[in-house]
Amino acid sequence: MITLNRAYNFNAGPSALPLPVLQLAQEELVNFKNTGMSVMELSHRSKEFEDVLTHAKETLTELLNIPDTHEILFLQGGASLQFSMIPMNFLAPDQVGAYVLTGAWSEKALKEAKKLGKTAVVASTKEENYRSIPSLDDIKLPKEEIGYLHITSNNTIFGTQWADYPSIEGVDLIADMSSDILCRQIDVSKFSLIYAGAQKNLGPSGVTVVILKKELLKRIPEGLPTMLNYETHVKSNSLYNTPPTFGIYMLSLVLDWIKEQGGVKAIEAQNHKKAKLLYTSMERSNGFYTPHATEESRSIMNVTFTLPTDELTAVFLQQAKEKGFVGLAGHRSIGGCRASIYNAVPLEACEALAAFMDEFAQANA
Amino acid sequence: MITLNRAYNFNAGPSALPLPVLQLAQEELVNFKNTGMSVMELSHRSKEFEDVLTHAKETLTELLNIPDTHEILFLQGGASLQFSMIPMNFLAPDQVGAYVLTGAWSEKALKEAKKLGKTAVVASTKEENYRSIPSLDDIKLPKEEIGYLHITSNNTIFGTQWADYPSIEGVDLIADMSSDILCRQIDVSKFSLIYAGAQKNLGPSGVTVVILKKELLKRIPEGLPTMLNYETHVKSNSLYNTPPTFGIYMLSLVLDWIKEQGGVKAIEAQNHKKAKLLYTSMERSNGFYTPHATEESRSIMNVTFTLPTDELTAVFLQQAKEKGFVGLAGHRSIGGCRASIYNAVPLEACEALAAFMDEFAQANA
Ligand SMILES: Cc1ncc(COP(=O)(O)O)c(C=O)c1O
Ligand SMILES: Cc1ncc(COP(=O)(O)O)c(C=O)c1O
Ligand SMILES: [Mg+2]
Ligand SMILES: [Mg+2]
Ligand SMILES: [Mg+2]
Ligand SMILES: [Mg+2]
Repeated sequence: MITLNRAYNFNAGPSALPLPVLQLAQEELVNFKNTGMSVMELSHRSKEFEDVLTHAKETLTELLNIPDTHEILFLQGGASLQFSMIPMNFLAPDQVGAYVLTGAWSEKALKEAKKLGKTAVVASTKEENYRSIPSLDDIKLPKEEIGYLHITSNNTIFGTQWADYPSIEGVDLIADMSSDILCRQIDVSKFSLIYAGAQKNLGPSGVTVVILKKELLKRIPEGLPTMLNYETHVKSNSLYNTPPTFGIYMLSLVLDWIKEQGGVKAIEAQNHKKAKLLYTSMERSNGFYTPHATEESRSIMNVTFTLPTDELTAVFLQQAKEKGFVGLAGHRSIGGCRASIYNAVPLEACEALAAFMDEFAQANA
Repeated sequence: MITLNRAYNFNAGPSALPLPVLQLAQEELVNFKNTGMSVMELSHRSKEFEDVLTHAKETLTELLNIPDTHEILFLQGGASLQFSMIPMNFLAPDQVGAYVLTGAWSEKALKEAKKLGKTAVVASTKEENYRSIPSLDDIKLPKEEIGYLHITSNNTIFGTQWADYPSIEGVDLIADMSSDILCRQIDVSKFSLIYAGAQKNLGPSGVTVVILKKELLKRIPEGLPTMLNYETHVKSNSLYNTPPTFGIYMLSLVLDWIKEQGGVKAIEAQNHKKAKLLYTSMERSNGFYTPHATEESRSIMNVTFTLPTDELTAVFLQQAKEKGFVGLAGHRSIGGCRASIYNAVPLEACEALAAFMDEFAQANA
């Protein structure tokens, strides 16, 4: 038992936060560091808040080993606004935005780019219902000049995740890491831009982290709305206008917590252990549970699976709910089941779920 | 004494929140309504969060008497993103966006509109350093078709506030009410669009409230980025993508608190009382304190004033700080002093400040 009254939270986002982070936030909610104010009541231009922001940037830099060539931004609007900001800033009229389609979020990113410029789908697994990630050889770039290559590193809805990232000489790689940032070690220098809504692995909703290669700034066209121009936020250290101060504070606490767990390397090992519990339970079930993703493309963040019938799925979800498991229904667009096991989901919750899956399969197979 | 260790918070935004709201948020931070989760850990598509959102909309509707013709949205990006969204959505190529300039924020709104279409400054008090609001007769509309008339209802930096709003037959009135929404009773039906960053009178930063006349939606052009199209958010009840759930929750608590205070009418009376304390102290000072705003244009939200010399200003701010007053320095663009006395700033804080101002004037005049 983790603590009294704590749900087994498998929500896809917003999702589980580390209990010690919530407890610390609770403790200092009314009086932040003896300022006589809540962190929410601090001016975003105060020394106290600036310290929070700086600490968040430093900790993220340390955890992901972010090189000096890159800048960290804390923005609003969610990953969905990034879908538009990216082509606005980095897709010139004579260029093509190259998109790999691996799920619903890649499609949405493409849809927004299409409104703003020329695009090409350079690989897609849509025909096989997004069960897998294309192999790197399957990426076929068009002859035109490429603005960037966009991928979704983890497909929250379908439960797939890139194993190796594409790396193409002279092509800027942009990744939507909303549902797997900080779940494993990555080489940030390989990416020109990484973005992630905070509400899965980083903190509460309302903050979007962008890690951007400064060289890219040269490519931004004149005349963009100020708030939609990345340079605005780089120049002002994410303080051009009022940032979501409480969200950034929570994010800084989550980053501290990851560091205390041993950093990304330790978290990655723990994530593999958690995912293995669930995939092993499926394997043990002799076909009662069918993973949606192919083995090589399985996500360690979103574990998707189906049961033999829709009726059994409904019973499974109902019983799970009664036992205190939250958020196990698959996304409304594909149905079935999904366990989102982000960094803050404890091993115990996965053990409990695996045990319940075993039991349920035995009782209903 | 309000409570032990509570600062006298005169921050311009983010700013003071009601203590009972902070205490309730603290109490339920780790376990929201016995869900076993923090409100931050709830899915934005859960029944529990939907209840929070619905409650916030209903309470705001009640407090401002918002008619059925209008829709409430909770967006991200701050008031600053509204500066661009408004012309994107409501300024057609053959129309002119009419702007009244009453301060730095009106200028910024205009600057963004200029990037996107034709604009006209239809009145301005810039020449007199924004000490006043233009009289309604001074608004001269151009002959071209008007997209909308934009005003800033309260000028956070200069400390001025509109007494009566312009009302021009056939012209859509749009108001940036970031720093005075809910400070007094207004007739929402007179406005086609009202917007406000939450971080002054509504809650923490990271949520922007938009109150929009549904009829306006017809005017939105094709092809806008989905996130920047108001219709997206109307159609999806502000749940197109992940909203800032914790911010909306805090806002709902602040609205409950306003209701408990007796609603906007009671709050308005209290605000006048608070403002009067400070303006009266200035009058008593025989010219030691000079209000920046002319008498008819004085804001009841941001009280701006200067002292005889920059040296005295510095001593005043230093002594104020030592006595536990926070946020009294004027905006870096105009200097001097500013006391932001939003809804959540208690009468006691204004009494204490008025007393300190009296004392300081006596000792230094
Ligand atoms: C991979 C991915 N991208 C983008 C989004 C959209 O994020 P937001 O709601 O922050 O706009 C999500 C949300 O679940 C996601 O999982
Ligand atoms: C009147 C007014 N408009 C707009 C803004 C900008 O708001 P935001 O920081 O939410 O973009 C402010 C901020 O102080 C303001 O006072
Ligand atoms: Mg978000
Ligand atoms: Mg997906
Ligand atoms: Mg804001
Ligand atoms: Mg102003």
